[in-house]
Amino acid sequence: MQITGCNFIGAEESKRGERTFKAFDPAAETELAPQFHEATSQEVDAAILKAEQAFASYSRRSGLERAAFLEKIADEIMALGDALLQRCSEETGLPLARLTGERGRTVGQLRMFAQLLREGSWVDARIETAMPDRQPLPKPDVRSMRRALGPVGIFGASNFPLAFSVAGGDTASALAAGCTIVVKAHPAHPGTCEMVARAILSASQKSGMPDGTFSMLQGKSNDVGMAIVTHPLIKAIGFTGSFTGGKAIFDAANRRPEPIPVYAEMGSSNPVFILPGAMKKHSAAIAKGLAGSVTLGVGQFCTNPGLVFQMDAGDLTAFQSALSEAFQKAPSATMLTPQIHAAFQDAVASTAAQKGVNILASGAQTAGLQGVPHVLQTDAASYIENQQLEDEIFGPSTLSVTAKNKAELLDIASKLHGHLTATLWATDEDLESHTELIHTLERKVGRLIRNGFPTGVEVCHAMVHGGPFPATTDSRTTSVGTAAIDRFARPVCFQNFPDKLLPDELKNTNPLGIWRLINGEMSKGLL
Amino acid sequence: MQITGCNFIGAEESKRGERTFKAFDPAAETELAPQFHEATSQEVDAAILKAEQAFASYSRRSGLERAAFLEKIADEIMALGDALLQRCSEETGLPLARLTGERGRTVGQLRMFAQLLREGSWVDARIETAMPDRQPLPKPDVRSMRRALGPVGIFGASNFPLAFSVAGGDTASALAAGCTIVVKAHPAHPGTCEMVARAILSASQKSGMPDGTFSMLQGKSNDVGMAIVTHPLIKAIGFTGSFTGGKAIFDAANRRPEPIPVYAEMGSSNPVFILPGAMKKHSAAIAKGLAGSVTLGVGQFCTNPGLVFQMDAGDLTAFQSALSEAFQKAPSATMLTPQIHAAFQDAVASTAAQKGVNILASGAQTAGLQGVPHVLQTDAASYIENQQLEDEIFGPSTLSVTAKNKAELLDIASKLHGHLTATLWATDEDLESHTELIHTLERKVGRLIRNGFPTGVEVCHAMVHGGPFPATTDSRTTSVGTAAIDRFARPVCFQNFPDKLLPDELKNTNPLGIWRLINGEMSKGLL
Repeated sequence: MQITGCNFIGAEESKRGERTFKAFDPAAETELAPQFHEATSQEVDAAILKAEQAFASYSRRSGLERAAFLEKIADEIMALGDALLQRCSEETGLPLARLTGERGRTVGQLRMFAQLLREGSWVDARIETAMPDRQPLPKPDVRSMRRALGPVGIFGASNFPLAFSVAGGDTASALAAGCTIVVKAHPAHPGTCEMVARAILSASQKSGMPDGTFSMLQGKSNDVGMAIVTHPLIKAIGFTGSFTGGKAIFDAANRRPEPIPVYAEMGSSNPVFILPGAMKKHSAAIAKGLAGSVTLGVGQFCTNPGLVFQMDAGDLTAFQSALSEAFQKAPSATMLTPQIHAAFQDAVASTAAQKGVNILASGAQTAGLQGVPHVLQTDAASYIENQQLEDEIFGPSTLSVTAKNKAELLDIASKLHGHLTATLWATDEDLESHTELIHTLERKVGRLIRNGFPTGVEVCHAMVHGGPFPATTDSRTTSVGTAAIDRFARPVCFQNFPDKLLPDELKNTNPLGIWRLINGEMSKGLL
Repeated sequence: MQITGCNFIGAEESKRGERTFKAFDPAAETELAPQFHEATSQEVDAAILKAEQAFASYSRRSGLERAAFLEKIADEIMALGDALLQRCSEETGLPLARLTGERGRTVGQLRMFAQLLREGSWVDARIETAMPDRQPLPKPDVRSMRRALGPVGIFGASNFPLAFSVAGGDTASALAAGCTIVVKAHPAHPGTCEMVARAILSASQKSGMPDGTFSMLQGKSNDVGMAIVTHPLIKAIGFTGSFTGGKAIFDAANRRPEPIPVYAEMGSSNPVFILPGAMKKHSAAIAKGLAGSVTLGVGQFCTNPGLVFQMDAGDLTAFQSALSEAFQKAPSATMLTPQIHAAFQDAVASTAAQKGVNILASGAQTAGLQGVPHVLQTDAASYIENQQLEDEIFGPSTLSVTAKNKAELLDIASKLHGHLTATLWATDEDLESHTELIHTLERKVGRLIRNGFPTGVEVCHAMVHGGPFPATTDSRTTSVGTAAIDRFARPVCFQNFPDKLLPDELKNTNPLGIWRLINGEMSKGLL
């Protein structure tokens, strides 16, 4: 497949802009052909207008039709074969094995949402039947279900060039909900974006979806993104990336004459708490597993455990020496972009220079854009008085914080801001003697993990990849798992509508055989 | 029951402030004793701190305990007897019969949420069981459910002094979700607020709920409200009232260092579309029903139908003369406050002075603070070119707009902003020949009504009392009906937790017997 550097206004290829940029190979430290054309404001407008026009038709396609479309996208991505993985690896420095796995997750997500649509109950259909003779007033027939919000703007992340990018979780869930989408391609992997865009457009055409269901715009400056966020026809935003980027989008969306929801997942430090019993029993295994989790994918995961809290008890010395050893042995690897590499180096240096902080261990220094694993350490008092230390460092590093006692650990937990996850290493006895800590952490995160590591987010019905601000801008949602679809729909109620004009989901005969709440009772039956 | 004019910091009565105000009887146009003390910033802080302290305990009470608490609140409100209705009528000008009905709705809502808690499935429990042998990676045990957000600030509305006030739908749903609450009493009915607050506090004490589960603060200025909205421990806001008030709260909440969700229901013009077949068949009945809906409760409902669109066809003349007659006969009645009365008069006069608009009919002029029913009329072209005409007029008036043809009607619909409801008067043939209109309206509102009127919001599982901005600040939610509880919770995920430390809702044995999504299948069973 040829990569041309164009924008996609629906199926139309467009290169009207004069601003261009190239992809960059962080391993070879060279630019990659071809030139990409940043979308002009006219191209942004045209794509969004097409998305609006397509919405009327696309949003009313049946769940089965949308399911077939999602499955076709998965097929078309697989049909890109090794060329996709090759280009993606060149643009990101990520190894082919990792990208093969990520492609599996990407097509798996698309198929999972297809299955959700085939099952059909996600619409939360609710039916209350009329009681015309009720006193003092008759009860009307009232039925409600979720309907798509409208055209959605989607911003992919640099760190998951497939699973959180053009055909990632936001795209899969928004298309599943019935929204048309305009994707802002990530400038760190624009060629990968173009290849996947072509796969989606091919699937769209083969599935008979209206032109404009999917568009993709290239751009290196913030202008294209802001033009999407502030466009009156855009009704929601999905974003995965930095706090700075996500917060700027959130603020712009709220300043619109018509504010819109922004689902920004902005990363997290994913605190790990090692309780005394677990430390005594498993210090070596925890140290080894932690080093693996911190350095997985060069630490470039939202769920990278960047903070580790333990008490000055149990096998602390053994733990720290095991941790040192594991980090000294941990391999360095190429980071996604020169900017990310530089930011990582700066953040490690700046953290190491904070009062009471020192470097416990690091991997071997290397040349180029390789991220060198680091484990830093400090005491709880120094940590508590320095807010900066809670901030995420994007890359293979973690900060080990030693508390004097249980009270200090609880104090740390109670002062945490929102994170995606918190992890407890704890024996049953630890858990029972630390319920207040667990309850405190529950208020701070979307996911609590016991005796594991936060990396490796299971894509399933029960996953919550979200959490209180600043981890995300909307703690009521998840961006991974089937519940992600809820972000792109809202309930609509039909009162006294004739059966044949109701959506199939709300018809008396329940033609789709879905679960519905009928007069307060869950049922797959008909009326 | 004596009304003392105090604030309630949990159960503690407090009058530290020097700013005072009195309630006003709009029928007698006199002030009512006693003096109410506006809460100081210290009192606001104290109430919110108590709410935070109570949250740890209250949020972990079982659904059954919270249900019993809600039912006890209902009982305590009923136990206030006629004294509550009497004071409420004095403060609002609303007749006792109406307030008796509204009290029924208020206690009915509390009991409805109690029933929802007893049933228990609202938490959206999801369980994915572990697959330790899965290749290439084991699947962890992942379980999620909704948990309460934290302390919530609630602002009641002037127009429903019971059902959308201190013990209204926001309070019932937030307490049901497990949130502690700090209510800002409405200065238009502060005595009613105090009586209901005492009922809630009595129920809280009798049910053994922690002190601080409920607090209430009085205030006439915006300072108290803004202090609640901007307090770092407050995690969500429920509001019903004007666009100006709701938008100011929304903006302040989004400017916080930690933005929080704001559920502001800000009213609506509730457009009614009368299609030709229905006009031909039912013009007299529609006119009569419409006048009844517009003037119900002196037009002081969020669902008051303030815009009526019809085509210049069918029985238009008969309709308009029936409408005139109905409005001429419609009784005037006392409005809630002098400010609301003055704003209504100004808005009617200003609308009547717009180009192309004239008064079709009005009720008899009266003295005092009575709202006089008005029906104004214009043509579609004048309406379309004047955005002001879409704005809600709070009071007993409506604007009848005549379109030349179907295309003009569709143009009007497509240009509507968000509203709570849209109503269609339509025969089956009308509906079939206006699908584009129906689909267009579906994108603009939370509830579509056929051959009825938008006033009279059924409190049930399927109701959606919400809609796109500016009707509300969050179209994904409803403030009436059981789904209102979802606003005050977020999903939390537990990975690899031991069964005995999981919430009951997620335990293997399903001790609460609730519906759960187990590995993708809805089930009431155990594992």
